[in-house]
Amino acid sequence: MLARRARLLGPAYRLFYQEPLHLVRGEGVWLVDAHGRRYLDAYNNVAAVGHCHPHVVAAIARQAATLNTHTRYLHDGILDYAERLLGTMPAALGHLMLTCTGSEANDLALRIAAAHTGGNGLVITRFAYHGVTAALAEASPSLGTQVRLGSHVRTVPAPDPRLPPEQVGPAFARRVRAAIAELQASGLRPAALLVDTVFSSDGILTDPPGFLAEAVDAMRAAGGLFIADEVQPGLGRTGEAMWGFLRHGVVPDLVTMGKPMGNGHPLAGVAVRPEVMAAFGSQCRYFNTFGGNPVAVAAGMAVLDVIEGEGLMANALRVGAYLRARLDDLARLHPAIGDVRGAGLFTGVELLGTDAARAPDGAAAARVVNAMRRRGVLVSSAGEHGNVLKIRPPLVFGEAHADLLVEALAAALEA
Amino acid sequence: MLARRARLLGPAYRLFYQEPLHLVRGEGVWLVDAHGRRYLDAYNNVAAVGHCHPHVVAAIARQAATLNTHTRYLHDGILDYAERLLGTMPAALGHLMLTCTGSEANDLALRIAAAHTGGNGLVITRFAYHGVTAALAEASPSLGTQVRLGSHVRTVPAPDPRLPPEQVGPAFARRVRAAIAELQASGLRPAALLVDTVFSSDGILTDPPGFLAEAVDAMRAAGGLFIADEVQPGLGRTGEAMWGFLRHGVVPDLVTMGKPMGNGHPLAGVAVRPEVMAAFGSQCRYFNTFGGNPVAVAAGMAVLDVIEGEGLMANALRVGAYLRARLDDLARLHPAIGDVRGAGLFTGVELLGTDAARAPDGAAAARVVNAMRRRGVLVSSAGEHGNVLKIRPPLVFGEAHADLLVEALAAALEA
Repeated sequence: MLARRARLLGPAYRLFYQEPLHLVRGEGVWLVDAHGRRYLDAYNNVAAVGHCHPHVVAAIARQAATLNTHTRYLHDGILDYAERLLGTMPAALGHLMLTCTGSEANDLALRIAAAHTGGNGLVITRFAYHGVTAALAEASPSLGTQVRLGSHVRTVPAPDPRLPPEQVGPAFARRVRAAIAELQASGLRPAALLVDTVFSSDGILTDPPGFLAEAVDAMRAAGGLFIADEVQPGLGRTGEAMWGFLRHGVVPDLVTMGKPMGNGHPLAGVAVRPEVMAAFGSQCRYFNTFGGNPVAVAAGMAVLDVIEGEGLMANALRVGAYLRARLDDLARLHPAIGDVRGAGLFTGVELLGTDAARAPDGAAAARVVNAMRRRGVLVSSAGEHGNVLKIRPPLVFGEAHADLLVEALAAALEA
Repeated sequence: MLARRARLLGPAYRLFYQEPLHLVRGEGVWLVDAHGRRYLDAYNNVAAVGHCHPHVVAAIARQAATLNTHTRYLHDGILDYAERLLGTMPAALGHLMLTCTGSEANDLALRIAAAHTGGNGLVITRFAYHGVTAALAEASPSLGTQVRLGSHVRTVPAPDPRLPPEQVGPAFARRVRAAIAELQASGLRPAALLVDTVFSSDGILTDPPGFLAEAVDAMRAAGGLFIADEVQPGLGRTGEAMWGFLRHGVVPDLVTMGKPMGNGHPLAGVAVRPEVMAAFGSQCRYFNTFGGNPVAVAAGMAVLDVIEGEGLMANALRVGAYLRARLDDLARLHPAIGDVRGAGLFTGVELLGTDAARAPDGAAAARVVNAMRRRGVLVSSAGEHGNVLKIRPPLVFGEAHADLLVEALAAALEA
């Protein structure tokens, strides 16, 4: 299969794990490989309400058999979904535009921000990932140094979790102000501060809630907007709030969403303040052939049904706290663990060298990720040094699953 | 619904028709509105094998209930699909990369072309549409003059159907050579000639087959690539060949695909020569969360099953020829019809003023499109002047449907 894949799909595709997984089935928090072995999925937030959730599958099947057209015809589905989804956000975010992918959502958000501000200067974090279109690859340093950043992009170090909590926000805001000044010195008008509100690829930086507000104020003072990239933190993941930005007490100008919205069905979008939308709307029409089609919004509605009906935000809050408490216990036994952090069911476990330098240990994280996979538990790593275990399971993850994960991590750390 | 839509979705969305359609159901070539009225769909190529085809719906439902993950795990589905789809193309096109939308496919193709050529100069036609990402909006003049073209983009007039057939290719190639010279004069290295191989938004320009070859040669002589945008012409639409470029006897460097691939399920992609892929592959990984996921490729496989099993290419060839013969008859009765052209089930009917000037009559086309909608037949218009009726039905369109269309068009023209 590896040879066939290299031949057919070419050199740009990557697989997870030293021993890649060949999956054939999924259910809830479980994935099953071709040999019938089960793996605990502690990584895939796309299957937010659990792999192959029957309510979502039925909604997709029913709508696919009924009608699947596009947004140039009237359809109740997209309006009902937009109303319901916008209803989970502050009222200022009045419009919803639907795309198929988070990349398309961020790409559209940048176009809207440029139309509104008349600028294109962008401030992002140093190991950010925002998507895979040409415009977003220029704003995704985590793709590697061979992918050039745009000349209109300035990066700032991610928020520093080592600082006393009351200093995290001011320090981050100082960096953002410096980046804005650099843009202006280059003659570039700031368009937006664009951040993932849990800083997923920078290493999962969640605390203290509220620390983002001062940086947002700084960008607004310079005439730019705040775009909250909720592709990873959004839709209840943090347990405390439906959206990551709500934890920070800020109301973004644009909110981009993706991965979990359709539980794997391609569905993503942008929520935007009407006054920010006006300039783009007067200059340009927007049509996305599959974006917000009747099947996609049926999937999206079903996902919201399950999140509400099964109390998955409360579950994320409870199980996430339980998981981090158990990981804190583990950290007392294993000096390689430098920090355990996160919100709801999004957790980062930082691994450091055990000598005095306490340097980020990406190699150890890679070994742990692969050892856990051999033990049947799927996680990945994040951060500029790849040294933060990224634990981001479906929201139906329970305490018993957290126990399995902690046992596998303990065994991997001992090995 | 209109007010609710404006409030929830904002100002960038557009609807078809003076009296927008509120659709609730689809089957084969038929769409049904909320009042139970049936409309003959002669426009939507996305539902290539017919609205809600049971074989495709079943494939989606089955796979959605089994597993829906992504390309960082091994899965037979994407490999089987890649092999089958690439099998419909010349062997030189060895790799397939999958995305969710045609925009993502074209955006990726431009990134690959830039990596291979070291340039970004682009030649497109004057009323082209290639997509809706930031990079593609800069290469889609049909979005309107308020959407700026990129400084690296040069446009050429579309092929001229008024010329004697043997002059169409040389004349188009002359324009492309001039555009290449302009790029070079500006210090820009040509990366690609990017065209829709039936020039859909330029007004459906299909003949004579083969006319593209000289322009492709010109771009290659300048060190650039040829990207065939098959989002509209591809997957059997032209009847004569599975892909529009095959009609022209050229083998592209990159082929981009989209709309009909999943019969409405978001599925699109890029086929590429391995030697053209190498530079991008060595610089950059590519991951598209939903692109090529197991459900998407199951939908794609089912679409190929139906195209082959129901002989839809042969149907497109036969019914398309029948339709154009009947439209030619109609043209003899109605001087407003300037030209009837197309290939397979992609037909353009040009409307001109009936005075001596014979100017393109976009207003007449808009009236006809709306009159046909009132008569229960759905078409649209295309071309720089909006004066070419765009007839692009599902491939299950039969002679009886063609008769209904011609009757509605005749009545509309008389009115």
